[in-house]
Amino acid sequence: MKTVGYAAYSSDAVMAPYHFERRALRANDVAIEILYSGVCHSDLHTVNGDWGPQPYPLVPGHEIIGRVLEVGPDVTHYKVGDNVGVGCMVDSCQECDQCHHHEEQYCRHGMTPTYGAPDRIDGQITQGGYSKHIVVREEFVLRIPDALDLSRAAPILCAGITTFSPLRTWNIGKGSRVGVIGLGGLGHMAVKLAVAMGAEVTVLSRSKKKEEEAKSIGAHGILASTDEEAMAAAAASMDLIIDTVPVEHDVSPYTSLLDIDGTLVIVGQVGPMEGFMAAPMIMGRRRVAGSLIGGIKETQEVLDFCAEHNIHPICEIIRPDQINDAFAVMNKGDIAHRYVMDMSALSVDS
Amino acid sequence: MKTVGYAAYSSDAVMAPYHFERRALRANDVAIEILYSGVCHSDLHTVNGDWGPQPYPLVPGHEIIGRVLEVGPDVTHYKVGDNVGVGCMVDSCQECDQCHHHEEQYCRHGMTPTYGAPDRIDGQITQGGYSKHIVVREEFVLRIPDALDLSRAAPILCAGITTFSPLRTWNIGKGSRVGVIGLGGLGHMAVKLAVAMGAEVTVLSRSKKKEEEAKSIGAHGILASTDEEAMAAAAASMDLIIDTVPVEHDVSPYTSLLDIDGTLVIVGQVGPMEGFMAAPMIMGRRRVAGSLIGGIKETQEVLDFCAEHNIHPICEIIRPDQINDAFAVMNKGDIAHRYVMDMSALSVDS
Repeated sequence: MKTVGYAAYSSDAVMAPYHFERRALRANDVAIEILYSGVCHSDLHTVNGDWGPQPYPLVPGHEIIGRVLEVGPDVTHYKVGDNVGVGCMVDSCQECDQCHHHEEQYCRHGMTPTYGAPDRIDGQITQGGYSKHIVVREEFVLRIPDALDLSRAAPILCAGITTFSPLRTWNIGKGSRVGVIGLGGLGHMAVKLAVAMGAEVTVLSRSKKKEEEAKSIGAHGILASTDEEAMAAAAASMDLIIDTVPVEHDVSPYTSLLDIDGTLVIVGQVGPMEGFMAAPMIMGRRRVAGSLIGGIKETQEVLDFCAEHNIHPICEIIRPDQINDAFAVMNKGDIAHRYVMDMSALSVDS
Repeated sequence: MKTVGYAAYSSDAVMAPYHFERRALRANDVAIEILYSGVCHSDLHTVNGDWGPQPYPLVPGHEIIGRVLEVGPDVTHYKVGDNVGVGCMVDSCQECDQCHHHEEQYCRHGMTPTYGAPDRIDGQITQGGYSKHIVVREEFVLRIPDALDLSRAAPILCAGITTFSPLRTWNIGKGSRVGVIGLGGLGHMAVKLAVAMGAEVTVLSRSKKKEEEAKSIGAHGILASTDEEAMAAAAASMDLIIDTVPVEHDVSPYTSLLDIDGTLVIVGQVGPMEGFMAAPMIMGRRRVAGSLIGGIKETQEVLDFCAEHNIHPICEIIRPDQINDAFAVMNKGDIAHRYVMDMSALSVDS
C-alpha cells in the first residue's frame, strides 16, 4: 500500500515529506487510515539521535488514531470503518511470561516499537504515525470508545498509558495521596487520571505559577519545590509520586515527601539521573521505581477509563506541515499540552 | 544502678572506660546484665561524628545479649535469669500507626535509639551496650531462644534484622533468586537468612576471591561485578538484591540484574549515593528501595528463625579493652565477621 508521511532524513531532525510503501496485509493485519497523530517528546529525542543512531529516513509517531480500511482474513476483532488506535508497540513475541500476562512492553525478547525497529517477520524497519496509513497486527490495535473525541484521544496512547499504568500498579484509588512532578504532557494526564481514580493529587513544580491550571484539572494544589518550609511540612504525606521530569535531576527532595513504603516512579527521564540521598529511602522504606508505558490490555483499559470519565488530554491541533515548528517549541521546554496532527491535510497524491 | 562501660569522649573515637548510672527501674523496666555486646560499623560512624554531632561521653552498642537481673512490678514477659537481647531501639511512641502495626523503627514520632538520644520520659541520653548493664522497657526487650549460642547471637539484633526484614518485606521464599552485594557483617547474614528461606543466593562482589567463603555459607556462587560478560549474562535474573555496600556507589550495574518488578534494597549506606541510569528501571519496572532494621516483633522472629535454622553470625570474640584495635581494623574495610565483646572482663569495681 502506497502511503506518505513526514520523515527525518538525518539527525538534524528536520521533518520532510516521504513517500513509502506499507506492507501487504498479512492474515492477522489491520490496515488503518490515520486521522490524528500525536506528537510525543520522545519522537523528537529519537529523530535527533539522542537515544542512539536511527535508521533514516524515519517516520516517528506512536499516538495514532485512525479508521480501519481493510482487514486480513484472520482478523476477528475489527471490521472496516471501526475507530482504532495504535500506541508505542506493534508486536512482541506473544510467547513469554510477560506477554502471557499482558505486559508486552516488558516482552523477554523485546517488544517491537511502532517506529525505527525491524519487523519481526520481514525485517523491514517499522514506520510510525506521522503518515497517512499504517498496517498493524490485530493484537496491537486498540478500540477507540465512541465517547472519546477522536481529535483529542491520540495522547492517551502514550502519555495516558504511561501514567495510568503506574497508578494501577501501585493501586491508586479513593483516598490515595498522589504527587505529580511536572505539568507537561505526561503530568497533566497523570493528574486527570489520578483524580478520576479518587486520589487527592498535588502537583509538584518549581513555583506556584501554574496553580490555577493544576486546580482546573482537579489537582488539590501545587507544592512549590523551592519552598523549603512547605516541602518540610509535606514530609511523609504521599503514597505515590509520578515523576515526569524529562531531564537529569535529583529525586531526594521528593522521596522525603513519600509516606512509609511510598514509591516515586520515574516516567519522564530514561537517561542518567543525579546522585541521591539514601537516608530518606532507608528511614521510611521508600522506593524509587521506573515504569514503561503499559501492556495492550491496560492500554485498552485507559482508553475505556478516559471514555467513562470524560478525560481528554489537552491537545493543540496542527497540520502535518507544521511539525517542524512544533518541534521547535517542544525543544524549548515543557508545554502543558500535546500537539496532535490532523492527518486529513496529507494526501498520497500530493 | 552503678555501671561501667566504654565511651567515646569526643569525635576522635578513642574508647575509654566510663563509670555512669543506669536509671532506677520504672514499673515496666527490665534491668539486664550484659554478657555480650556486638560491635557494629555504625557504632564507629556515630562516635566518629560521621552522622552529626554526638552527646559525649557516648557509650555505643546496639547488639546486646544479657541476662535479666531485676524487673519492675508491671513486667509480665520476663523474669530474673532469662536470657534476653536489646537491639537498635529502646522506645517509641507506641501510639502511632507504625507502632501499632509493629514497625516501631518507622515510628511517626521517631523511635528512641539505644544510644545517643534523649529518653522519652526523663530526657537522659541513652547509653548503649558497650557496658556492664542496661535498663530497658519490657516492650523493647527480646527473648533469646535456648538454641542460640549466647556468645554468637548479638549481631542478629542488628545485622540479622537489617537483612531479615527486607527479605520478609519482599516475600523471599522457596525458589526466590536473591543477590547480596558485599560479604561483610550484613552480607553474610543476608546470605545465611535467604538460603534458609529457600532462596538461590548469588553474592555480588568485585572479584571471585571470596567464592569458597560464599559457598561455605550456602551461596550458589559469586558473580564478579567487574566481569562484564558474566554481568550481561545475568541480566534480569534476580528478584531481590540486598545492597550492603557501606559507601557511596552506583546502583546501575546491579539494577539490570533484577528481573521485571525486582527490587534492590539499600541497607548499607545511609549517606549520598552516586547518579544512576533510569533506563534499566524504566525498562523493567525495577525498583530501588531502602530499609531500616525491623520492628520488635520482626526482631523476635529473626531470633527465633536463627534458632530454628541454627544460624549464627560469624563472630570474633574480643575483650572490651580491645575495642580500639577492633575499630582500627573495621576502619580499614569490610570484614566477613562481627566483633563481639565478652563483657565478663568488665567490672563495675575495676
